[in-house]
Amino acid sequence: MSGSIYGKCFTISTWGESHGEGYGVVIDGCPAGLPLDESQIQAYLKRRKPGQSKFSTPRKEEDKVRILSGVFEGKTTGTPISLIVFNENQRSSDYSDIASYYRPGHADYTYDMKYGFRDYRGGGRSSGRETISRVAAGAIASAILKELGITVYAYTKSIGPVTIEYQKCRKEFSMQNPLYMPDLEAAKKAEEYIMEKQAENDSVGGVIECIVTGMPPGIGEPVFDKLDAALAKAVMSIGAVKGVEIGDGFQVTTRTGSENNDPFAYDQNKRLIKLTNHAGGILGGLSDGSEIILRAAIKPTASIGRPQRTANKNNENIEIQIVGRHDPIIVPRAVVVVESMVAITLVDFLFQGMTARMDRIKEFYNLYKQ
Amino acid sequence: MSGSIYGKCFTISTWGESHGEGYGVVIDGCPAGLPLDESQIQAYLKRRKPGQSKFSTPRKEEDKVRILSGVFEGKTTGTPISLIVFNENQRSSDYSDIASYYRPGHADYTYDMKYGFRDYRGGGRSSGRETISRVAAGAIASAILKELGITVYAYTKSIGPVTIEYQKCRKEFSMQNPLYMPDLEAAKKAEEYIMEKQAENDSVGGVIECIVTGMPPGIGEPVFDKLDAALAKAVMSIGAVKGVEIGDGFQVTTRTGSENNDPFAYDQNKRLIKLTNHAGGILGGLSDGSEIILRAAIKPTASIGRPQRTANKNNENIEIQIVGRHDPIIVPRAVVVVESMVAITLVDFLFQGMTARMDRIKEFYNLYKQ
Amino acid sequence: MSGSIYGKCFTISTWGESHGEGYGVVIDGCPAGLPLDESQIQAYLKRRKPGQSKFSTPRKEEDKVRILSGVFEGKTTGTPISLIVFNENQRSSDYSDIASYYRPGHADYTYDMKYGFRDYRGGGRSSGRETISRVAAGAIASAILKELGITVYAYTKSIGPVTIEYQKCRKEFSMQNPLYMPDLEAAKKAEEYIMEKQAENDSVGGVIECIVTGMPPGIGEPVFDKLDAALAKAVMSIGAVKGVEIGDGFQVTTRTGSENNDPFAYDQNKRLIKLTNHAGGILGGLSDGSEIILRAAIKPTASIGRPQRTANKNNENIEIQIVGRHDPIIVPRAVVVVESMVAITLVDFLFQGMTARMDRIKEFYNLYKQ
Amino acid sequence: MSGSIYGKCFTISTWGESHGEGYGVVIDGCPAGLPLDESQIQAYLKRRKPGQSKFSTPRKEEDKVRILSGVFEGKTTGTPISLIVFNENQRSSDYSDIASYYRPGHADYTYDMKYGFRDYRGGGRSSGRETISRVAAGAIASAILKELGITVYAYTKSIGPVTIEYQKCRKEFSMQNPLYMPDLEAAKKAEEYIMEKQAENDSVGGVIECIVTGMPPGIGEPVFDKLDAALAKAVMSIGAVKGVEIGDGFQVTTRTGSENNDPFAYDQNKRLIKLTNHAGGILGGLSDGSEIILRAAIKPTASIGRPQRTANKNNENIEIQIVGRHDPIIVPRAVVVVESMVAITLVDFLFQGMTARMDRIKEFYNLYKQ
Repeated sequence: MSGSIYGKCFTISTWGESHGEGYGVVIDGCPAGLPLDESQIQAYLKRRKPGQSKFSTPRKEEDKVRILSGVFEGKTTGTPISLIVFNENQRSSDYSDIASYYRPGHADYTYDMKYGFRDYRGGGRSSGRETISRVAAGAIASAILKELGITVYAYTKSIGPVTIEYQKCRKEFSMQNPLYMPDLEAAKKAEEYIMEKQAENDSVGGVIECIVTGMPPGIGEPVFDKLDAALAKAVMSIGAVKGVEIGDGFQVTTRTGSENNDPFAYDQNKRLIKLTNHAGGILGGLSDGSEIILRAAIKPTASIGRPQRTANKNNENIEIQIVGRHDPIIVPRAVVVVESMVAITLVDFLFQGMTARMDRIKEFYNLYKQ
Repeated sequence: MSGSIYGKCFTISTWGESHGEGYGVVIDGCPAGLPLDESQIQAYLKRRKPGQSKFSTPRKEEDKVRILSGVFEGKTTGTPISLIVFNENQRSSDYSDIASYYRPGHADYTYDMKYGFRDYRGGGRSSGRETISRVAAGAIASAILKELGITVYAYTKSIGPVTIEYQKCRKEFSMQNPLYMPDLEAAKKAEEYIMEKQAENDSVGGVIECIVTGMPPGIGEPVFDKLDAALAKAVMSIGAVKGVEIGDGFQVTTRTGSENNDPFAYDQNKRLIKLTNHAGGILGGLSDGSEIILRAAIKPTASIGRPQRTANKNNENIEIQIVGRHDPIIVPRAVVVVESMVAITLVDFLFQGMTARMDRIKEFYNLYKQ
Repeated sequence: MSGSIYGKCFTISTWGESHGEGYGVVIDGCPAGLPLDESQIQAYLKRRKPGQSKFSTPRKEEDKVRILSGVFEGKTTGTPISLIVFNENQRSSDYSDIASYYRPGHADYTYDMKYGFRDYRGGGRSSGRETISRVAAGAIASAILKELGITVYAYTKSIGPVTIEYQKCRKEFSMQNPLYMPDLEAAKKAEEYIMEKQAENDSVGGVIECIVTGMPPGIGEPVFDKLDAALAKAVMSIGAVKGVEIGDGFQVTTRTGSENNDPFAYDQNKRLIKLTNHAGGILGGLSDGSEIILRAAIKPTASIGRPQRTANKNNENIEIQIVGRHDPIIVPRAVVVVESMVAITLVDFLFQGMTARMDRIKEFYNLYKQ
Repeated sequence: MSGSIYGKCFTISTWGESHGEGYGVVIDGCPAGLPLDESQIQAYLKRRKPGQSKFSTPRKEEDKVRILSGVFEGKTTGTPISLIVFNENQRSSDYSDIASYYRPGHADYTYDMKYGFRDYRGGGRSSGRETISRVAAGAIASAILKELGITVYAYTKSIGPVTIEYQKCRKEFSMQNPLYMPDLEAAKKAEEYIMEKQAENDSVGGVIECIVTGMPPGIGEPVFDKLDAALAKAVMSIGAVKGVEIGDGFQVTTRTGSENNDPFAYDQNKRLIKLTNHAGGILGGLSDGSEIILRAAIKPTASIGRPQRTANKNNENIEIQIVGRHDPIIVPRAVVVVESMVAITLVDFLFQGMTARMDRIKEFYNLYKQ
């Protein structure tokens, strides 16, 4: 059944495989009149592009995006926007032997079980390259959020044992190191840790944190389409994510209510605020006007150079060694993917939220009565 | 916009407020021919019923369910099943003053922002009583899973600092203590911890773990409706949940690939198994045939007897003290809610999974050609 | 799979069978702040109630509606609205023999094929009484449309050979005769025709026309969710409807383009109008600001007193005679059902239409920024 | 809001404009293991291609389709199938002046109202070329139906006053004349009629009939997603369609129940059949095993060479004359579009129908248990 379509009002439909013709996404439900050109999308894709540092696969792919529809004279028209990135530099020969066995930590076995066979070249649909489509759509969602004064910022919070605190970070540092870690000292330590594990033909994991500012309160659709529930799905749908937390997440389980509740108060400008934000900006499934905070747990790259035990299709237990160079860590390139999925979800829910009150609907249609 | 509807093939639509006429759910897409009577559903509701132990609110509610449609001569007919639980014993007078201010940790403020006003009696739609509808539907989903040999088992894994290991538990112990903790010694310690905090007019949190056995491999719909993504949404949509993990969850972030990958192997019966299960039974968003394992972080009850600072609607910062007795912990009563949301999600995805292969579809329709 | 749920933004979920406990509908996505009480809904239900004239079944049912959720202090709260009508006066014994054979023109056979068995009492889920749920929801949709200055008016356009022209009708006459025909002379002729056929133990069909005024232009979602496509589905989903036309409908097939095109022009107030309305108020799947006009073809009642040939479940060809009195015509009671389905659909699309333009979305959120 | 996505289980997402880069469709939910190559799709596209007869625009477009994803080694993989047809031979200069006014019978005005502006080149998204995406997806749906022994056949039933009877036709004649009319004598008369109107710079309409054979009984999802309701939407969503009928359609409105009911009977092979088929193969919204019959009313081409009155954007009433050659009739090229929309809808509902019975679901999963 259909599973590559996401969103109710702002809907994206993605396609593509690692060694097919390319990747793409159709965005249906993008409002008309948004200024859009390819360079805006390219800037986002650049952040997930391989071959940019010593920690990412040296395949030099351009991942050049083309807008095929939905834009006229520099603006979106309200009709579906089709984006495409043609694949280049894919050598199918590299993958010929992996057709016969199941790589640990990969989807080889489960795809075979579901579909009866699989496009084994580079993981086919289950390849991390699938996120190209997400990021391309995310760039458009971010452009919409910008018009509404909302920003989504994700960064590398931890790599292996090296963890940083958001309060001590400076956002602008994110872009100054290949790990997207906004604490340059920690980034250096993390780099050393990765190199150490890489030398052992091994890989490492980490945590991505995402912060949303400027979100109006009251966004989310109880009781199943709560904003936190939707964000959890959005982020967990990214390959390699094994956990999601909102606000203080699992830490709240050892707290008491008096420690965990965030008191409301009016500030000196008589604006209602929360004095703390353990809740991570969401109460009862609705945004509460403070920063939305979420974290994603990213597993270490499954493809490692070390010998591994596994099974093949001939009922044999074997030992394999995955050839070719793979990223020793997924985290840095996944930062923009988390940002994209959050942005897409927020746009969808902002749109859904427009029909919550009769008085506003009435005013809306009165304003635009011809 | 519509947010109280859940599921694509097996769809539930819930309604009800704490102090309205009652709660209900319409299940649309339940297959015909499933034996069903009210006692099956009542047994599930009993597990979330208040007034059963010293740790749950003493309101004595029967929460008696009625089947209003979709069942004929003891079997489901394939048409929508409407279930209703009428409210009893609700005293609106208790809640009169909370209309004027925003309780910390509750949805009072965010509902006001979204809808312009709120049914303040007992939290209205945002009350935990909303889960009655989920559990009633969950009972039916569980009956379907049982026919397919699949079991969903959730339990209290931790309460405050008291944590237990699944490997050391005996499932049957769950039902022998009011905390649904399958380690009676730990349960005793947890009980003491709760009483201590309760004496301080405070509340505590904890972790629920859920284990699914018997799930066939290949269930899930990449790339957005991955099984783990869907389960994350299902569980995060339950009030009070602040984090979700699959398999080893956040622990994987400090592991290496060689530690985290689960090797495949054939066992002595030539059945393919995984030698470890760090992945928690899901690879590439598809079930892999091993146990599915997930955990939910439950925050401490927001309603506490202690004085708390907050703001009212007259632009004043005030101190409040919430009267009435509230559960000092949400965890035990939420166990069956987690089980229900997982069961509903699994049924939906098992149904979705039936169209994955052309050969099976063909065989299906050949079998039933008249 | 789920099929009793309708609408994307304004979503209704219906349930109930002819001889079950009752009928109901859950409306999810109704905006907060709409004044609503049971009498408004009852007024709509009255128009489809049986036992009101010599042409409708003499079963005296009250069809009394209750609001179970979603309304607080006389206003909708934005949360799901659950409506219920308990069945009364259902005698299951009347239907015992129809369990064994397939009534011509009914869903007996097809339900057996789909579900394996059926609730045969009074047609079960396939009974015309199912429209109670639609009309109850339609009453709420109509209340929303009224706030936006939009009216939906349906009437009996033809009964057998007796046809009337909208231009010659006076709306207020609709309510003055049991056939909802706004031309009293024609109504009299139609009445005679029905009585003639009724005397022969036979039944008759007819056409319902529906006119929408006050609809803003630009509503509809190309290319699949065009407004005309959505209306066609809405109306065709009503039992007994065998055809749907928009504007001049099938008549256009023998016209030329120059005859059929509606010229645009500015009127003396410089408002853009269409000089004719062959298109029925929809161009390119979007409302064009003129009256929306659609017609539904209603088949003659399938239950007739005459002897009919059919087959039973014992592989025998038999002759049956359906006992009990049935409406000799469906049309008059279906008028309010057509109105309801059109109203529900329009509300859903008005809500969908709010996200079509970036400038309006921006203005919307600026207006309501706290 | 999203409106270019169609189907629940077999979902298509289309994009493209008349003078953009091209047209495409992403098919999500196509089962794995279906043999598929570009030539199968090209054969369908050929039937709607322009420039093939004197009655279609002389633009010579190749409309060459490419499969970009979802197919591996000649078979579908179960992942999204992306199809693209690049535009060629589009001269935007031809359309420069239509930017300033609203063509009668077109979507120019309504698109402006909805989106604030429009891609005016060749009608942009509202162009009939949009059906390329539908037909490409329809080819795949038809391939699935073929595997299940189901055929969908549409043909030109009438052009202006020239009407034919299905009973007198021979299917194979359809392909032997440019009008897809399976009665060669009638086709000749229709041709003359078209030429006559074309000489007057005018256009003509007609009726398309579609017949489905081999459909198993019990397919459809009451009460809103009835098969006839879904087909009505599918067909009405095609531009230029103004009416849809199932079975005898509007004719039933002047019939009596005894004339209109189709008697059931066992044939000599003890198979249950209907002795007549006024219902058009659908009872209670479910397929009944006999032929499904539907008709679509197609309006005359809106673009005509004759002078027409209309309004421009400067508040002026003007007279226009549309230059360039346009098809004098839409019907023949729409035949394959109707077939496609019906095929897509049937596949979607066959997939939906797989979860109707618990016993079959159980058997399904037992069969495929590893």
